[in-house]
Amino acid sequence: MGETAKNKKLHLGAFMRPIGIHTAWWRYPGGYPDANFNLDHLVRFIRTLEAAKFDAFFMADHLAVMKMPMEALKRSATVTSFDPLTLLPALAMVTERIGLIATASTTYNEPYHVARKFASLDHISKGRAAWNLVTSGNPDEALNFGRDAHLDHPVRYARAREFFEVVTGLWDSWADDAFVRDVEAGLYFDPKKLHTLDHKGEFLKVKGPLNVARPVQGWPVIVQAGASDAGRQIAAETAEMVFGSSSTLEAGQKFYADVKGRMRAAGRAPDKLKILPGAFVVVGGTEGEAREKKARLDALVPVESGLANLSVRLGTDASGFDLDAPLPEIPETNASKSGQAQIVDYARRTGATVRELARKVGGYGGLSFIGTPEQIADRMAEWLHTEACDGFNVMFPFVPEGLDDFCTGVVPELQRRGLFRTEYEGTTLRDHLGLKRPGNRFFEGREAVNAGS
Amino acid sequence: MGETAKNKKLHLGAFMRPIGIHTAWWRYPGGYPDANFNLDHLVRFIRTLEAAKFDAFFMADHLAVMKMPMEALKRSATVTSFDPLTLLPALAMVTERIGLIATASTTYNEPYHVARKFASLDHISKGRAAWNLVTSGNPDEALNFGRDAHLDHPVRYARAREFFEVVTGLWDSWADDAFVRDVEAGLYFDPKKLHTLDHKGEFLKVKGPLNVARPVQGWPVIVQAGASDAGRQIAAETAEMVFGSSSTLEAGQKFYADVKGRMRAAGRAPDKLKILPGAFVVVGGTEGEAREKKARLDALVPVESGLANLSVRLGTDASGFDLDAPLPEIPETNASKSGQAQIVDYARRTGATVRELARKVGGYGGLSFIGTPEQIADRMAEWLHTEACDGFNVMFPFVPEGLDDFCTGVVPELQRRGLFRTEYEGTTLRDHLGLKRPGNRFFEGREAVNAGS
Repeated sequence: MGETAKNKKLHLGAFMRPIGIHTAWWRYPGGYPDANFNLDHLVRFIRTLEAAKFDAFFMADHLAVMKMPMEALKRSATVTSFDPLTLLPALAMVTERIGLIATASTTYNEPYHVARKFASLDHISKGRAAWNLVTSGNPDEALNFGRDAHLDHPVRYARAREFFEVVTGLWDSWADDAFVRDVEAGLYFDPKKLHTLDHKGEFLKVKGPLNVARPVQGWPVIVQAGASDAGRQIAAETAEMVFGSSSTLEAGQKFYADVKGRMRAAGRAPDKLKILPGAFVVVGGTEGEAREKKARLDALVPVESGLANLSVRLGTDASGFDLDAPLPEIPETNASKSGQAQIVDYARRTGATVRELARKVGGYGGLSFIGTPEQIADRMAEWLHTEACDGFNVMFPFVPEGLDDFCTGVVPELQRRGLFRTEYEGTTLRDHLGLKRPGNRFFEGREAVNAGS
Repeated sequence: MGETAKNKKLHLGAFMRPIGIHTAWWRYPGGYPDANFNLDHLVRFIRTLEAAKFDAFFMADHLAVMKMPMEALKRSATVTSFDPLTLLPALAMVTERIGLIATASTTYNEPYHVARKFASLDHISKGRAAWNLVTSGNPDEALNFGRDAHLDHPVRYARAREFFEVVTGLWDSWADDAFVRDVEAGLYFDPKKLHTLDHKGEFLKVKGPLNVARPVQGWPVIVQAGASDAGRQIAAETAEMVFGSSSTLEAGQKFYADVKGRMRAAGRAPDKLKILPGAFVVVGGTEGEAREKKARLDALVPVESGLANLSVRLGTDASGFDLDAPLPEIPETNASKSGQAQIVDYARRTGATVRELARKVGGYGGLSFIGTPEQIADRMAEWLHTEACDGFNVMFPFVPEGLDDFCTGVVPELQRRGLFRTEYEGTTLRDHLGLKRPGNRFFEGREAVNAGS
């Protein structure tokens, strides 16, 4: 099993957050300002991505209108978007091969609902579903679910771990060949092929069985994005794709080695998890043209939006900070530890002012590839070949141009170099990612299939 | 406003429960035994129903594998089915006009999720979504959501009422014209057009606003099915379609008068709610042929399945009852009051044995129209013209034959008589049902639009 370094190919996800991570994406000249909430546009995008042979279409999520000062909020395209688990079944009907990744929180959901919806999506899409398992670190989400404050970070992760066990246990309620539908005998299923989970844990009590047949993929692909210590550990133990957030090659290599090392320690073969850092990609006919596009986009970010993004990253309201002073002391919060640490470290290291930090995160401050298709392919190849990644979750700067440029410029260049598929070789997302179908823990023995190599 | 008795037309929903209410539907000769879990079949059915100009496709739901003795469970097609809110967005993409009704429980859901998913479905389907608001009366569902027992009937209904207020309040988070998307000014929405609900009630605390624009229909259509006193009252106050369960014309007229009377008492015009009893319809070229089909189907119900259905209806395990004795005393339970009372009354009135009761409910014991298209149209017209209904939720005995027979036999007969549309006149489910788009309570004044005539 596993790809050798030589023939290793990139895996590409399209991170449609909805649409863009850059706050000004909807203002770019010639773009679709309503793209994130226009089904016809989304259909066009996913078909373009499928024609370019992307592994998957990735829809992130928030369970709230983000809390920002109104001066920033009123400029944000994130305030209206489709529920990912309602959108993806629709997009499944206009595509045939591309994977469909939806974020669903383990903090404000019930595992029976999550197991059932992803199992249904996997059947409807004939094996293309993936669950991005997150904990909810946005304090505004708590208020929409009857809580005054968020669960503490360690509690969120302990609950997430148990939630994962319950959801996957529910997916294994039925053996793959349970449903005989013997019309003559009047037998719909074989009773020996049904398992009742009867889970009673620290956070959850769920009887089961699930009222949906085992998913086409056994389990939908498990995706995670946590970068904190707890996040890396749960990823090493359970994830099959990680949405990475390293912003430099060196950080990418360290993260890659750390997570794959944790996998070995947990008894999992490293190739059972693909690490795809998010990469913001701006393509131009020349490097200068690409940089010009990026500058034009950045110029469309108002400082209010940047401050709002900074507040989210810090988990504290930055709107009152002195714009021209360095970042003040930031209190400990329940927000994402890794997101906060990264920006605080950067501020301390560079002595950047609040205004500079706001611009940085209001546009996009993470890993960016800006240049010609050849330059971008060079960088991607370098990451792939130096064990910094197994591919990328590509973030487009604006649509449709930014997405089309990538699909018609960078993808063919990667294909020419043998770094990316020219045809899908299978039908399921597991096929695209080179991931085995997990065995059913109750009927086949989990160890034999999910652990080891 | 409102249709006069003379020009009143039927509204038709297709109750796809999933697929059939008769436990033997999947065994009928020449049928599709896997129809309820086969997307291709479901696509074919909904397209046929749309070609026949049905108002809506209705997907009921349960949040559990029904608890039955294994001898009955292993014969039940209900054990695997799609989550309705995952299936309907997919079916929205292969249809253009037909309404899409999904059941979602107010007992084991969070209102923020429910509001968001139905709003998303309404946008994706361009105004065709409806929410069948139910309380969970199935004791097995509690066990999948961390509870040992169900909420009491009055608590469930009080929570349901508050849940409705929160969901509709979240749908009204944004004025219809909130999203200006002014690219030049960098203004995505008008802050004056945003309302934060900030609900703090007896059962629920939800901040809002919803992160989805106001639905195309204002609110997706509100459907209910409760027949108990509490169920009728909440329907009279909030519902726009009721799935009725009267099994005789007289009972239908009484129910109709009662609910419409409660509406007047609550200050709502009676034509703001359409009453569509479930009707099990078997069509034949002759009455004899139709009766033969029904007999063939009934003969395929094993007594174990009948006993299991009886247990559900009674809210108590009937598998140990003496098959050849009359129904014993039934203890008070948290199950559906109206479902239990109906069968107990029938048993006392007729002195039927347990075996006879099991056969009756194992097949289908409610309102049935069995005969030629002409005979069925006669009965439907009688119900419509004597104020027993505004239409029907048609339940097919088996598929595809039973569904096709209805669409190619009964529908044309109803159309010939001017009792059913020959073309859709609008694009939304509200258009089909003759229901006004509700005003936004925070921006237009709820009273003006939703109450009165």
